Amino acid sequence: MADFRVCVVLSLLCAIAVSVESKYMVYDTAQGVVKGKLNVHMVPHTHDDVGWLKTVDQYYVGSNNSIQGACVQNVLDSMVQSLLVDKNRKFIYVEQAFFQRWWRDQSEAIQETVKRLVSSGQLELINGGWCMHDEAAPHYIDMIDQTTLGHKFIKQQFNVTPRIGWQIDPFGHSAVQAYLLGAEVGFDSVFFGRIDYQDRAKRKGDKQLEVIWRASKSLGSSSQIFAGAFPENYEPPSGFYFEVNDDSPIVQDDINLFDYNVQERVNDFVAAALFQANITRTNHVMWTMGTDFKYQYAESWFRNMDKLIHYVNQDGRVNALYSTPSIYTDAKYAETDSWPLKENDYFPYASDINTYWTGYFTSRPGVKGYVRMLSGYYLAARQLEVMKGRNKAGPTTDSLGDALGIAQHHDGVSGTEQQHVANDYSKRLAIGQKETEVVVAESIACMVSSTPGCGSLATNFQQCPLLNISYCPPTETDLSSGKKLVVVVYNSLGWKRSDVIRLPVVSENIAVYDSNGKEIEYQLLPIVNDAIALRNYYTTAYTGKSPSSTPKYSLAFTASVPPLGFTTYVISTTKKPASNSVNEAFYKHTETGKDWIEVGTGNLKLIYSGSEGKLSQYVNSRSSITASMKQSYSFYAGFDGTTGEQASGAYIFRPNGTYTIGTQEQTPIKVLNGPIYDEVHQKINPWIYQITRVFKNKEHAEVEFTVGPIPVDDGVGKEIVTQITTTMKSNKTFYTDSNGRDFLQRIRDYREDWDLEVNQPIAGNYYPVNLGIYLKDETSELSLLVDRSVGGSSIVDGQLELMLHRRLLYDDGKGVAEALNETVCVGNDCRGLTVQGKYYLRIDPVGVGAKWRRSYGQEIYSPLLLAFTEQDEKTGTNFQVSTFSGMDSSYSLPDNVALLTLQELEDGKILLRLAHLYEIGEDKDLSVMTSVELKKLFAKRKITNVSEMSLSANQGREEMEKKRLVWKVEGSKEDKSPTTQRGAPIDPQKLVVELAPMEIRTFIVTLQGKTIPRRLVSSDLIPQ
Amino acid sequence: MADFRVCVVLSLLCAIAVSVESKYMVYDTAQGVVKGKLNVHMVPHTHDDVGWLKTVDQYYVGSNNSIQGACVQNVLDSMVQSLLVDKNRKFIYVEQAFFQRWWRDQSEAIQETVKRLVSSGQLELINGGWCMHDEAAPHYIDMIDQTTLGHKFIKQQFNVTPRIGWQIDPFGHSAVQAYLLGAEVGFDSVFFGRIDYQDRAKRKGDKQLEVIWRASKSLGSSSQIFAGAFPENYEPPSGFYFEVNDDSPIVQDDINLFDYNVQERVNDFVAAALFQANITRTNHVMWTMGTDFKYQYAESWFRNMDKLIHYVNQDGRVNALYSTPSIYTDAKYAETDSWPLKENDYFPYASDINTYWTGYFTSRPGVKGYVRMLSGYYLAARQLEVMKGRNKAGPTTDSLGDALGIAQHHDGVSGTEQQHVANDYSKRLAIGQKETEVVVAESIACMVSSTPGCGSLATNFQQCPLLNISYCPPTETDLSSGKKLVVVVYNSLGWKRSDVIRLPVVSENIAVYDSNGKEIEYQLLPIVNDAIALRNYYTTAYTGKSPSSTPKYSLAFTASVPPLGFTTYVISTTKKPASNSVNEAFYKHTETGKDWIEVGTGNLKLIYSGSEGKLSQYVNSRSSITASMKQSYSFYAGFDGTTGEQASGAYIFRPNGTYTIGTQEQTPIKVLNGPIYDEVHQKINPWIYQITRVFKNKEHAEVEFTVGPIPVDDGVGKEIVTQITTTMKSNKTFYTDSNGRDFLQRIRDYREDWDLEVNQPIAGNYYPVNLGIYLKDETSELSLLVDRSVGGSSIVDGQLELMLHRRLLYDDGKGVAEALNETVCVGNDCRGLTVQGKYYLRIDPVGVGAKWRRSYGQEIYSPLLLAFTEQDEKTGTNFQVSTFSGMDSSYSLPDNVALLTLQELEDGKILLRLAHLYEIGEDKDLSVMTSVELKKLFAKRKITNVSEMSLSANQGREEMEKKRLVWKVEGSKEDKSPTTQRGAPIDPQKLVVELAPMEIRTFIVTLQGKTIPRRLVSSDLIPQ
Repeated sequence: MADFRVCVVLSLLCAIAVSVESKYMVYDTAQGVVKGKLNVHMVPHTHDDVGWLKTVDQYYVGSNNSIQGACVQNVLDSMVQSLLVDKNRKFIYVEQAFFQRWWRDQSEAIQETVKRLVSSGQLELINGGWCMHDEAAPHYIDMIDQTTLGHKFIKQQFNVTPRIGWQIDPFGHSAVQAYLLGAEVGFDSVFFGRIDYQDRAKRKGDKQLEVIWRASKSLGSSSQIFAGAFPENYEPPSGFYFEVNDDSPIVQDDINLFDYNVQERVNDFVAAALFQANITRTNHVMWTMGTDFKYQYAESWFRNMDKLIHYVNQDGRVNALYSTPSIYTDAKYAETDSWPLKENDYFPYASDINTYWTGYFTSRPGVKGYVRMLSGYYLAARQLEVMKGRNKAGPTTDSLGDALGIAQHHDGVSGTEQQHVANDYSKRLAIGQKETEVVVAESIACMVSSTPGCGSLATNFQQCPLLNISYCPPTETDLSSGKKLVVVVYNSLGWKRSDVIRLPVVSENIAVYDSNGKEIEYQLLPIVNDAIALRNYYTTAYTGKSPSSTPKYSLAFTASVPPLGFTTYVISTTKKPASNSVNEAFYKHTETGKDWIEVGTGNLKLIYSGSEGKLSQYVNSRSSITASMKQSYSFYAGFDGTTGEQASGAYIFRPNGTYTIGTQEQTPIKVLNGPIYDEVHQKINPWIYQITRVFKNKEHAEVEFTVGPIPVDDGVGKEIVTQITTTMKSNKTFYTDSNGRDFLQRIRDYREDWDLEVNQPIAGNYYPVNLGIYLKDETSELSLLVDRSVGGSSIVDGQLELMLHRRLLYDDGKGVAEALNETVCVGNDCRGLTVQGKYYLRIDPVGVGAKWRRSYGQEIYSPLLLAFTEQDEKTGTNFQVSTFSGMDSSYSLPDNVALLTLQELEDGKILLRLAHLYEIGEDKDLSVMTSVELKKLFAKRKITNVSEMSLSANQGREEMEKKRLVWKVEGSKEDKSPTTQRGAPIDPQKLVVELAPMEIRTFIVTLQGKTIPRRLVSSDLIPQ
Repeated sequence: MADFRVCVVLSLLCAIAVSVESKYMVYDTAQGVVKGKLNVHMVPHTHDDVGWLKTVDQYYVGSNNSIQGACVQNVLDSMVQSLLVDKNRKFIYVEQAFFQRWWRDQSEAIQETVKRLVSSGQLELINGGWCMHDEAAPHYIDMIDQTTLGHKFIKQQFNVTPRIGWQIDPFGHSAVQAYLLGAEVGFDSVFFGRIDYQDRAKRKGDKQLEVIWRASKSLGSSSQIFAGAFPENYEPPSGFYFEVNDDSPIVQDDINLFDYNVQERVNDFVAAALFQANITRTNHVMWTMGTDFKYQYAESWFRNMDKLIHYVNQDGRVNALYSTPSIYTDAKYAETDSWPLKENDYFPYASDINTYWTGYFTSRPGVKGYVRMLSGYYLAARQLEVMKGRNKAGPTTDSLGDALGIAQHHDGVSGTEQQHVANDYSKRLAIGQKETEVVVAESIACMVSSTPGCGSLATNFQQCPLLNISYCPPTETDLSSGKKLVVVVYNSLGWKRSDVIRLPVVSENIAVYDSNGKEIEYQLLPIVNDAIALRNYYTTAYTGKSPSSTPKYSLAFTASVPPLGFTTYVISTTKKPASNSVNEAFYKHTETGKDWIEVGTGNLKLIYSGSEGKLSQYVNSRSSITASMKQSYSFYAGFDGTTGEQASGAYIFRPNGTYTIGTQEQTPIKVLNGPIYDEVHQKINPWIYQITRVFKNKEHAEVEFTVGPIPVDDGVGKEIVTQITTTMKSNKTFYTDSNGRDFLQRIRDYREDWDLEVNQPIAGNYYPVNLGIYLKDETSELSLLVDRSVGGSSIVDGQLELMLHRRLLYDDGKGVAEALNETVCVGNDCRGLTVQGKYYLRIDPVGVGAKWRRSYGQEIYSPLLLAFTEQDEKTGTNFQVSTFSGMDSSYSLPDNVALLTLQELEDGKILLRLAHLYEIGEDKDLSVMTSVELKKLFAKRKITNVSEMSLSANQGREEMEKKRLVWKVEGSKEDKSPTTQRGAPIDPQKLVVELAPMEIRTFIVTLQGKTIPRRLVSSDLIPQ
């Protein structure tokens, strides 16, 4: 018995069981767009994170698969094979950090094949940066740099320019992304997967997922872009996943086998297409056929897509085709529809009622700080590389550029990667930094020697990357043996500047001389014990050995440096104790109980209440501002998610109560005075230490915070914030920057695009802060500037809040699969990560705050670069040059212009980027057309050619503008700005670059005699 | 702070961080065998189950991946691409059920490419059957057929013959596999992964994993083969798995990336190689680089193997090479070593102390029964197809051959597949059966009509596949309207035979006539209610509708049929009640309490004790045997494994106590008498019903058991066994067959090859039984023959035990991931599967049992084939032929010869296999050289050519023997048998085939005029 178990089924199937011989089947996949039908654009793609759960290298080679099965080599190798099978198949690839290294590994034959595939459009490289950068934490200069890096590779190898922005995974989308890294690089459209769930719902209902995004108030319609948010995510419709081992039903079209399902799959396809058509304008919908690290074996996808296209088109209800976002964009453009207008940005991103992706604005503040520091350093180093002349054999700044490019990834500087991956980013950055230090040292040596070919480059310049924690061996040496310490101070800004330099020293018998040999004022403040302990621990953790000496003082003096140039200072020992009056009683304990402690000797004074140990007032005697001001710390308890609810984690900020810090445990404040600045030391609690500095010659206060190790023994993760509280009536309104560039208005508990349902009154009002955050009332503006990317908000009128550090104990379920619980170890002694950083605080009369925010913002981004060398007293200095500007010595860039890029390319040409720093209306004087004289910028070198380029420098600007698509905007929403201003094309004779507000212009500059690259020497640049 | 997190690491790495440009790397993979070094033969392979967790079609197309990610198309598609990348790369492929269907799907270009790959040896097809058949449950004829099917495809498409047996996964290895499906198909070696863990341990210690396996006592060294058991399994050494997403460390050889690990991986490689060398003879070890369904993207493996070969050979400690089992075998053969001798087989297989893979000998007895039934049917149908002439346009027997080929898989008939897959096998078999029924019906119609071209084939012959449960619509019709039922009885054996036919009928007014029109004796016994209920339920379950009538009687008569021929019988209604005396009181209830109930009217009598309701004695008056005999049922409780221990399941038999069945609940026995046979009905308990039949003219008893639904409401899985107990002193020794062919001696709690540590005294003594099991003492032999594959043993001296059915509630953790809990449903009414089957019982004087076992064994395998048609009384029979033999009418095959295959090939030639049925020494008369006269076998057709072939018919026998490797056997263990006998080469004039004991000879016979195939008609074959 038990025979014939399936004769019931059998009777149905016997009809088809007659032996039809199967044979080779050719699928018709040639279909293009068909007018009058619903066109389903199937876009085969893979999303390859440049680091996340595994490192970028591990993803590339496919190691460490126990964490995540992913191998980019598999994707690229197999994709090529599959494209060769059928010329109608298409594929897009995005991340050049992967693609270019794969490219280098290929045989010439494969390279030729791939060139043909790119040239025919079968393989399209889109987005095309080194990575798909984050849009909250990166600085716009980093975004430009990493995009340029990728676009350059693509241009060089394939002579093509990417047309499409493809930011499908970042967790919210910035204005700068849309207009700068979109329109200004020549993209015809940008697509993304993640927008607020409430926004998405409304847009689906209104068919407004696809918009014209006009993100720049200043540049208006001249920088707008077609922007499409996907209906769900960047994956295929449910049931159409065809990765090896995926469990979507494959298309089984062999009638001789069982489970034949062609009609069923065609029906599924049509249903999914119609569903999407219902929320999409025009007869075109896009299906993103792929997701993270898919196409490990590309054929498994293409085999099924071939069949779908074949049978769906046989069916005829809808039209299925292999497509790319370019083809899709062109199809959209070809429709006569006009499109909804979208302004501002898509922050913050919430994926669910309690799931606000605003924690990552601050996650891994150490990494964020390191990236920002190196970003400014990379900018300066490239300038110095230009001055020295790029050395083909290396060292170069390229490895730092590569590491920074990788670090901008949306699971890199965002802080949402696994710990070992964060370590990997830092390692890459450190390696790049180390190589770049050599470039910097050589260039400085070259410039100071001023001999042709830079002489022997004998002078060995050291740099102090750990100066932020007062570790700097060259300054900590005992100079009593007659040696002198030479400090070369380089200014990468286009303006002359003065800034206070602080160096750790071991002795109080000090004298400081300027480049003319004139002794100058300085001060010494003791380095407090807390700082020394931290210094020793972290220096040991980072260098592998404990410091051999312990500095006693922080030596400070004011350096004054020409634009794009340097000055030297010399520090020596005096035989007698310093006569400097400050040195005699250079600090005092403030008596507790005294209610009025005035700090600051210049225009700015901060008033503290000694009894409360707290800041109480902000006074600027010049601008007549007197404001009540409090500063406080508190923490949010991280929701633990143990009840199955959303936890607070690397991505998500979900507070579970607010707790004030330090009211009980605070020790009395300590005030240290000096001729250059005063310091207020506050030990807020055992793990928060704060130094506030008020400079005699500056009208902002600098707050240096040291937070950590955040205690978690109570089982509660904590997110540490600081608040600056005034009585200003800010009416729910505040402003945060977009990637350090434009400021956007934020209104608490409000969204411009839809009626916000407020679920998370704190997390839902957080925004990324890269440059600063401010608020205002009718009389004044309160601004905070930051030294790295953080999250910030104004939860209460008159108050600004920054989240400084986070330590959490639960994973937030968004994939990273780790709690954000950073530790640092020395041997087996591991401690929660301590973060030290700074923010800067100022109140201006209303309407004039921008000037400080913009100009001092540049100084924060580009601090003075210091290099040290020792000099024997007997031999004396062998520097021919002790001060120098790379520009015409009489020239300075206008106050509203920044030099974003000055870089020598492989072919010896110079990549130059100039940026107007102000938005329209931001400053009454500076928000105007301005100009830069290239002849003065390049001083004595003859400019033989200047070509204006797209922002990523991969095509001529004019050519790009010619190709620009002119989209129709719905209704009366045409450009509301007055005629958008742009600088005029550059006159090849005058070589003056005009810059309109917020305009960034990119040039390739050819200098005489540079067709065969040779070393530039500083004498080429020095005014004679 | 928190910058430079990895400067410690950094300082180590900076040295290598200098920008070495990576570039295309060519790996040297050309290495062959190197003398004097340890050679690591890397054999890239995939193991593609022809059904297991998914159906064969689902595995092929890659659907149903939620159960198991596996797609054979991916493997084959990507393998071809990877082999093309480097001509040194190699791959083996095994399962032709997959390969041939993939082949049909390919373009001509790919087919040409693959032919080149096969011809160059890059792609080697080994084993080459339709599947990798199980070695416990299949009948040797099925093994030959499925191997022939695959080998034929390979020969036709590629003109090659597989050299290697590759039974890497089956759960124990049979003698028949080694000598018949190994040596006799011309294999040079056979490899496998699973042998008893104790055996393996000993063999590793003694370097005896590789042996010369001489598995046939009769054929001795002429049928031996080099056999290698793998050290662990058929996977790569730990850490060398390179499937997409596998987590073995990939070989990272890009010095520019992190995690560079070449030396580490080379060291791992060398260590694994040396470890294996330590347990392996000669300087050659094989690494099986692959496992189940791997190479979904072949490049992920080859990429890493390329690198390993390159760097390991650079290292030079060992020699790594791409290899195949053929190359490995040749390398072993080239060594001068002699090898250990292995005899008998590798059953049973235990993988751990309590993990005896002896449950699957019985798992899914319904499937096993169905396969065995169709095996015999397929044999007969192919004979009938020859007689009719193969119809190119179909129907043919091919689909049944294909389905049977697939079902022999080691997770097919083994019963170790998931339920839905078991259903799929049955569906395929049923479809094949249905098509074959048409071939059979047409052939019979053709033969009875005897007109050239078979006339109109008008006669519609029905068959009754559910006759085993008394469902046969043609016999259940009311014949009172003057219709007659014609029964054509076909005998596929080479001997004339007489057998009792039993048919369900609705009336007692019956007459039966033979082919001469002479009324013959018959009997009618009532069909009992239990049987009717079962019939109705299962007929409904299998056909989808309930039977329209209910038969009352089982009509029985004796049919006598010429060899390879048929006879017709006619059944009609008599007006009067049957005069037959038996009909008057055809059955009686036996009085309970009567202690001596004698059953049987011929030589054999069974004596029952009515008071106990049990068999007590076996008496054969002819052979003067009187034996005490008990028969009983019991069950083993299946170990439930809930404590984390090994559970009893589809693979594993792990009893947790033995429980006697039916002592409490048994109803009184019922005896039914008839002139042809008597029946004893025993309702052992509510779910075991047994009918024992004693035939007047036969000297064995037939026991028909109906077991099920096995109750499991008590949460205990049960494995049902029956025991036949005598007082024979069998001294722990019994005999079971190898795949229905040779009998092997088994000794309880003993293994020939090592000192057995007895862990499982029951499960560890179970063996597969396909034909039968017997034991003996000094005077007599007790034999049981079975109708399907079961597990059996002799747990107690004098007792034989068969496991009839299993129903278990826990998975045994060997991958199938289901409990073996079969149910059958009618609508929503699902019941545990009931199994009905038969075994046959006989006692012979010692030394003469073989004759019954061999000859009656053939009759069980090849029961008479019945076809039915109705005849109108008025028109009379239109049969020209009512009895017929396909051979010369005076001829019969010798008693010791069976016709295994008579099949028309696509080219019209005839495939013929003849088998000697006796082993050396098995029977004093029949274990001798015998012969078959082909001229008489093919009677009136002129034979123009006879070529002797290898067993799988893919090469000439002579050619095969010429290539045979002559292995050295260790020590004095040369062939112990007297000079091995083989039949002489066939004389082309005499055309007489000699057959030595156990010899099977295979021929391709060309008949005159058959070069252009045309229909054979029966007249061609009928003696004139």
